[in-house]
Amino acid sequence: MKYGETLLRVRYAETDQMGVVYHANYLNWMEVGRTEFFRQLGMPYSEIEKNELFLPVTKVYCHYKAPARYDDLIRISTTISSLQDVRLIFKYEIYRANTNELLASGETEHAFVNSKGKPVVLKKYNPFLWRRMQDVTGEKAE
Amino acid sequence: MKYGETLLRVRYAETDQMGVVYHANYLNWMEVGRTEFFRQLGMPYSEIEKNELFLPVTKVYCHYKAPARYDDLIRISTTISSLQDVRLIFKYEIYRANTNELLASGETEHAFVNSKGKPVVLKKYNPFLWRRMQDVTGEKAE
Amino acid sequence: MKYGETLLRVRYAETDQMGVVYHANYLNWMEVGRTEFFRQLGMPYSEIEKNELFLPVTKVYCHYKAPARYDDLIRISTTISSLQDVRLIFKYEIYRANTNELLASGETEHAFVNSKGKPVVLKKYNPFLWRRMQDVTGEKAE
Amino acid sequence: MKYGETLLRVRYAETDQMGVVYHANYLNWMEVGRTEFFRQLGMPYSEIEKNELFLPVTKVYCHYKAPARYDDLIRISTTISSLQDVRLIFKYEIYRANTNELLASGETEHAFVNSKGKPVVLKKYNPFLWRRMQDVTGEKAE
Repeated sequence: MKYGETLLRVRYAETDQMGVVYHANYLNWMEVGRTEFFRQLGMPYSEIEKNELFLPVTKVYCHYKAPARYDDLIRISTTISSLQDVRLIFKYEIYRANTNELLASGETEHAFVNSKGKPVVLKKYNPFLWRRMQDVTGEKAE
Repeated sequence: MKYGETLLRVRYAETDQMGVVYHANYLNWMEVGRTEFFRQLGMPYSEIEKNELFLPVTKVYCHYKAPARYDDLIRISTTISSLQDVRLIFKYEIYRANTNELLASGETEHAFVNSKGKPVVLKKYNPFLWRRMQDVTGEKAE
Repeated sequence: MKYGETLLRVRYAETDQMGVVYHANYLNWMEVGRTEFFRQLGMPYSEIEKNELFLPVTKVYCHYKAPARYDDLIRISTTISSLQDVRLIFKYEIYRANTNELLASGETEHAFVNSKGKPVVLKKYNPFLWRRMQDVTGEKAE
Repeated sequence: MKYGETLLRVRYAETDQMGVVYHANYLNWMEVGRTEFFRQLGMPYSEIEKNELFLPVTKVYCHYKAPARYDDLIRISTTISSLQDVRLIFKYEIYRANTNELLASGETEHAFVNSKGKPVVLKKYNPFLWRRMQDVTGEKAE
């Protein structure tokens, strides 16, 4: 597996009566992608929150191209497409792992806020995370 | 509607590829039943938590008798079946509202804990809630 | 309540450890909005599927402005913003009902497909639904 | 990992405002346990359904002992505790993997039904699966 990639199995709970994965669950998968992205970056998101930094989702976009099905092995590729003082944008590509078929692509925008929900400037608030994210911005899992 | 009853509509998100409601969602519905139970009791659960009292689920049981389907109108009947110093048991009956068919019955056991997760004796910790719950224990929605 | 509007209560299950509603759940609420939209239109979505017409989500967008919290009463306003031969776009506004605060706005794009997932031209496939939807396209709940 | 065991990571989506995993999600994890159990048995559940056999949940029980938290690595041990002509019971133990702490234990009862929901006698309906399950009934992951 490449940097910024993670795998998961489709759960029965994630299907709906159309016989495919219910569309909202792809947002949960993007969050799984972010969690593994931060771990690979050297700062698990659980640590980020312990340091009083939170990254609530402010916008989400997803384009569904082909349906995922129960028990499919899913590969999620997560990259930072934009990093600014008070926000960042993640980009995701979601594949059926065994066929390499692109099932969906999407983006999430996040604010940097403290435990009271106030925006913070990441460069000052958490310089380590800022530097690590700068290093990988625009980098594509290869 | 009777005391301790509430209604909800089955969401598409709650179905699975068997074409019926995924079984774990009934636990969410029991929680909707509890929320409306506490509101009708005169103390919304959001207020209970603001008073630093939490009621985590310690046990759950559910018996599924007939499947709920998308867009069904569901009626949940919630009663307290046992109230003790440091725990209580809720009992639920879940019906398809238009046919009055019993779809599932279940129970949840809850501890009384403070914001640090330590058990508390409800009678001392929140006498108002204790008295209100004593009043209705064993009472069946009629 | 106005045409195209529906109400729901935030469930405890829908919150996350940030103390607010997890962002993916807003997509479930948009689906609740669509379900009530079709019912008010005179053709429940459950009937639409019985007529072998399906409307899978092909794109979703959501902009989160303020957090929804447990037990909030939520008002969803659903309108058709674009209706074409083989697809349509719904637009949503999600409010905290008691304060009228706009919490989120979003869109979903849907294809018209048959039970085999093949695109169909709605005007020919289901003229009744086509006409009803044309009648209300661009109409804002007032 | 031993026979009948599987691992998963707690998702942010699975937490609630108490800061721990919402109780209903443990039922989804039991289903993940079953899915991997059937795969290890030599007959993935997706194959079972393709053979027109379904195993709807008829009863569920769960006892919660300690809370799971975001990003915890979870180990699920799944065994068959009872196998009868028309039903079976799975038993689950759910651990925090790194500390080996038991977080919850539970059971699910399942019926054997065909695609019309009619009960079937497994021994006749799917002798291969019957034999494989007999082989491992009561066997504990060691």
